[in-house]
Amino acid sequence: MAARTVNLAVIPGDGIGPEVVAEGLKVLTAAASEHDIAVETTEYELGARRWHATGETLPDSVEEELRGHDAVLLGAVGDPSVPSGVLERGLLLRLRFAFSHYVNLRPVRLYPGVDTPLAGVRPEDMDMLVVREGTEGPYAGMGGVLRKGTPDEIATQDSVNTRLGVERVVRYAFAKAAQRPRKKLTLVHKDNVLTYAGELWQRVVREVAPDFPAVSVDYTHVDAAAMFFVSQPQRFDVVVTDNLFGDIITDLGAAVAGGIGMAASGNINPEDDFPSMFEPVHGSAPDIAGQGKADPTATVLSAVIMLDHLGLDAAARKVEEAVSADLRVRAEGAADERSTSAVGDDIAKRVAGQG
Amino acid sequence: MAARTVNLAVIPGDGIGPEVVAEGLKVLTAAASEHDIAVETTEYELGARRWHATGETLPDSVEEELRGHDAVLLGAVGDPSVPSGVLERGLLLRLRFAFSHYVNLRPVRLYPGVDTPLAGVRPEDMDMLVVREGTEGPYAGMGGVLRKGTPDEIATQDSVNTRLGVERVVRYAFAKAAQRPRKKLTLVHKDNVLTYAGELWQRVVREVAPDFPAVSVDYTHVDAAAMFFVSQPQRFDVVVTDNLFGDIITDLGAAVAGGIGMAASGNINPEDDFPSMFEPVHGSAPDIAGQGKADPTATVLSAVIMLDHLGLDAAARKVEEAVSADLRVRAEGAADERSTSAVGDDIAKRVAGQG
Ligand SMILES: CC(C)[C@H](C(=O)O)[C@@H](O)C(=O)O
Ligand SMILES: CC(C)[C@H](C(=O)O)[C@@H](O)C(=O)O
Repeated sequence: MAARTVNLAVIPGDGIGPEVVAEGLKVLTAAASEHDIAVETTEYELGARRWHATGETLPDSVEEELRGHDAVLLGAVGDPSVPSGVLERGLLLRLRFAFSHYVNLRPVRLYPGVDTPLAGVRPEDMDMLVVREGTEGPYAGMGGVLRKGTPDEIATQDSVNTRLGVERVVRYAFAKAAQRPRKKLTLVHKDNVLTYAGELWQRVVREVAPDFPAVSVDYTHVDAAAMFFVSQPQRFDVVVTDNLFGDIITDLGAAVAGGIGMAASGNINPEDDFPSMFEPVHGSAPDIAGQGKADPTATVLSAVIMLDHLGLDAAARKVEEAVSADLRVRAEGAADERSTSAVGDDIAKRVAGQG
Repeated sequence: MAARTVNLAVIPGDGIGPEVVAEGLKVLTAAASEHDIAVETTEYELGARRWHATGETLPDSVEEELRGHDAVLLGAVGDPSVPSGVLERGLLLRLRFAFSHYVNLRPVRLYPGVDTPLAGVRPEDMDMLVVREGTEGPYAGMGGVLRKGTPDEIATQDSVNTRLGVERVVRYAFAKAAQRPRKKLTLVHKDNVLTYAGELWQRVVREVAPDFPAVSVDYTHVDAAAMFFVSQPQRFDVVVTDNLFGDIITDLGAAVAGGIGMAASGNINPEDDFPSMFEPVHGSAPDIAGQGKADPTATVLSAVIMLDHLGLDAAARKVEEAVSADLRVRAEGAADERSTSAVGDDIAKRVAGQG
């Protein structure tokens, strides 16, 4: 019997989701067998197909079942045939909120050998960890419409920020910063305009800081941060920010760190009251679905964040090293035309020590 | 007597504001004398110094005086000695709102010869016009705080979107797109999450589109747009977006188009019910203030937008060509170490045909 069993719920989802998830599982399985871990998976068909067939995005009973797992691995959800927001809000955001994934962890890291669109930027210039708040802000879904369809229509959209929600994610970010060599935390917000929310974020950072005396604290407006991601990425170590700003700057981060095919994320409930959920930052990319063209690296790196979260550090390091090696080989031009599954095979082989 | 008199209010502001405005006026004066225009300026001391001295950001009487001018040229406001938001909200945003500057016009254009941080991107790949809404959205300043200072504190920040406000800026953007060779309009929003506001923006674009049959319409989520600004800037021609998204993507646009030293903007009231206001996108940069290091190009290009807005097309083209020529010369490395005023001198000379 294995030393440790991981009970994993898998949501392949739409578009390229199933393809990249298959490779993520392939690599996970290889790492598990190296480290005496048993990975037991239960697959859930959720996403566009189910919605078209039954009108359901996430039945309560399925949410309940997911709750019983150690973690969730998700590919991507969304399809042009489904109205914008239905699957995002009904499935993805519903899980983030229901499972209190208040930390949306998104490393922005340039691996050696990976091409960045930024001229002259080296891997050592880009190694940040964005800690995006995941359960409130403008994502709370609050707001409304008055006089709809008339010339006097008003639509509001409200960002909700609580002391509870801000403090827990800020504490998490400080703790992460304290563990890293540079020990720097940057709050990204727009406090000169969003004065109510911005003042709360600033005050919480100020009040939590004394508990982490080794961490230096910085502040950058979100517009300037977007600029600095391009012009001076080395300014940033750990970044903490709200849900919407985090959404924008992490896609930008993916772009500057070599593309969306490499950007990983974890939706984390640090207290483990609920299973955390791991997913690539990219979407379902229906235009290339089913063609074996998608890069599974982002999903594999999301599995690394999962292994770390589950305390399976040795397996996490092994997979991460395999990905690193694979990326270096790509840079040598040896393996550019590989299919999705060939990339998964190559990484899995390296994990098994045959790479 | 000159054929046309322009009655210009000048707000040099803080930090590098006065330096760059001086050069903007130098170039404007040169262009005016070439084109039989008289530029009459009235300077207003507003910004950090005045606030420290009197506690005022914008006295009603000054707002009233500004209202009597044809246009406002602003350098930059803001200083670390003033609490965040005081000058931004009390002066800059107050003017944008009071003068109904519902179009915040921000070209993102890579001039030949200018270095972009993006490898392999050519000037023809980057020529967009961002039409940012300027009078509502999260900038409305609405929201509040409940139970401040307690563990149960809640801070809200509300984005307000009106049919009136959205439609007028969308119509303006369509009209601009119709005048450009590519005739493409991209709405940037986040309608899968900000469903109330996003649905209004989408519906207005759909309803206005038939009035501009030559314009093709596209939609991009703001997170993807941030990515595409880096990876595929050629996707965009005219972009229309809300106040906050526009703030973020135009700073990003400045970064990819060669830096914040070149990014110009116009806060425009198209009906001319109020004077429009022209300002560089950059801030007051107190760290380099008074040293002659600031690039006045963004201010000069903002004056170009002003001349265009005032219908002084010939003068606008002359200044723009002078800037273009100056930027090409920089690329040849001949004039890299010039001071703020030397750059202004060189551009002014070109305008006067002595360049
Ligand atoms: C699909 C969408 C709702 C989601 C978000 O906005 O959070 C995505 O962009 C992401 O970043 O995970
Ligand atoms: C100074 C600030 C209020 C302003 C804004 O957010 O609009 C600035 O960033 C800009 O883009 O002009």
